[in-house]
Amino acid sequence: MYSYPRALRKLIGELEKLPGIGTHTATRLAFHLLDKSQQEIEELAGALTGFQQNISFCSQCHNITEEDPCQICSSPKRDQSLLCVVESPRDVIAMENTGEYKGFYHVLQGLISPLDDVGPEELTLDNFRERVRELQVREVIIATDPSTEGDATALYLKKILQKKDVKITRLAQGLPAGGDLEYADEVTLSRALSGRSEIEYD
Amino acid sequence: MYSYPRALRKLIGELEKLPGIGTHTATRLAFHLLDKSQQEIEELAGALTGFQQNISFCSQCHNITEEDPCQICSSPKRDQSLLCVVESPRDVIAMENTGEYKGFYHVLQGLISPLDDVGPEELTLDNFRERVRELQVREVIIATDPSTEGDATALYLKKILQKKDVKITRLAQGLPAGGDLEYADEVTLSRALSGRSEIEYD
Repeated sequence: MYSYPRALRKLIGELEKLPGIGTHTATRLAFHLLDKSQQEIEELAGALTGFQQNISFCSQCHNITEEDPCQICSSPKRDQSLLCVVESPRDVIAMENTGEYKGFYHVLQGLISPLDDVGPEELTLDNFRERVRELQVREVIIATDPSTEGDATALYLKKILQKKDVKITRLAQGLPAGGDLEYADEVTLSRALSGRSEIEYD
Repeated sequence: MYSYPRALRKLIGELEKLPGIGTHTATRLAFHLLDKSQQEIEELAGALTGFQQNISFCSQCHNITEEDPCQICSSPKRDQSLLCVVESPRDVIAMENTGEYKGFYHVLQGLISPLDDVGPEELTLDNFRERVRELQVREVIIATDPSTEGDATALYLKKILQKKDVKITRLAQGLPAGGDLEYADEVTLSRALSGRSEIEYD
């Protein structure tokens, strides 16, 4: 049966391996790339081959970085007494984008998930215990996802910190900004209700 | 402001250039690739750099190919008297996948579209005229999309073939197989109506 030239099939096959990209999208991407100049292709291929060598994980916070320790861990402007625990480097960026947080981070590189066979030993917890001690942390902010895995991990972190003189907090759960109460799911709404805050009289 | 390491930002930037891939998807892909082995990355990069050199366009039908003339144009089993005109190499694959068509193809590499500044001179029409003559084509099957551009191109092809002793046909328009009459749009339904075929009594 007739099909695309081998080199094109090979590229489609490679693109299909990427998450969320099926045969149709891979084919569309391959044809798009076929129209590009050799230089543009080289740039994409170059960005691919180069990027892993230049990225490693910070030995302190386990965030991705080009230098070790990373930009945040080596910053003298950060508040040593605050440690925000997140699942992944993407969560660090999300927190940084708020512009509100000035402490350190600890990237767990995962969440406890018995269904996916991820136990506490897969996470960067040994290092977390050390850092809590060394940095003389006053408050650990647990910023794991508001999901079953995030909750399980938060509970585990609570157990680790027990009997240490450290305040533990967790990101508030409630209605998202700009959201619509009418369309909020029951869990979100009941959490918003139980986490309600008092409005003080002037 | 803190952001991802430079090499990762570069890769995200390159991936974002692909059609249908925004910042979020590009970031997700980049993190997915970060977890892959160096060998897997090399394979993807290799498929990218290699594929353009190995692909050219058939000098006869303008389909993409590794040899010139292409597999289809050089096949002795094909019916020379049939010529199917399509927009792109992807349409050739779609037609071939039906397993019903045994003639030759002509890939226009576009459709006439005044809005996008694509005139007849951008298409592979000079070569089309020659081939119709040389191959002694009896029937030209116009398989352009059932769109404004496809209709305009079909009209233009009709003009080219006028006064030549060649039958012209166009792919039927009507209800798609497995479709639901109730949800068919008005244009499709009215074309299905005007193109209705008679059911003969046994």
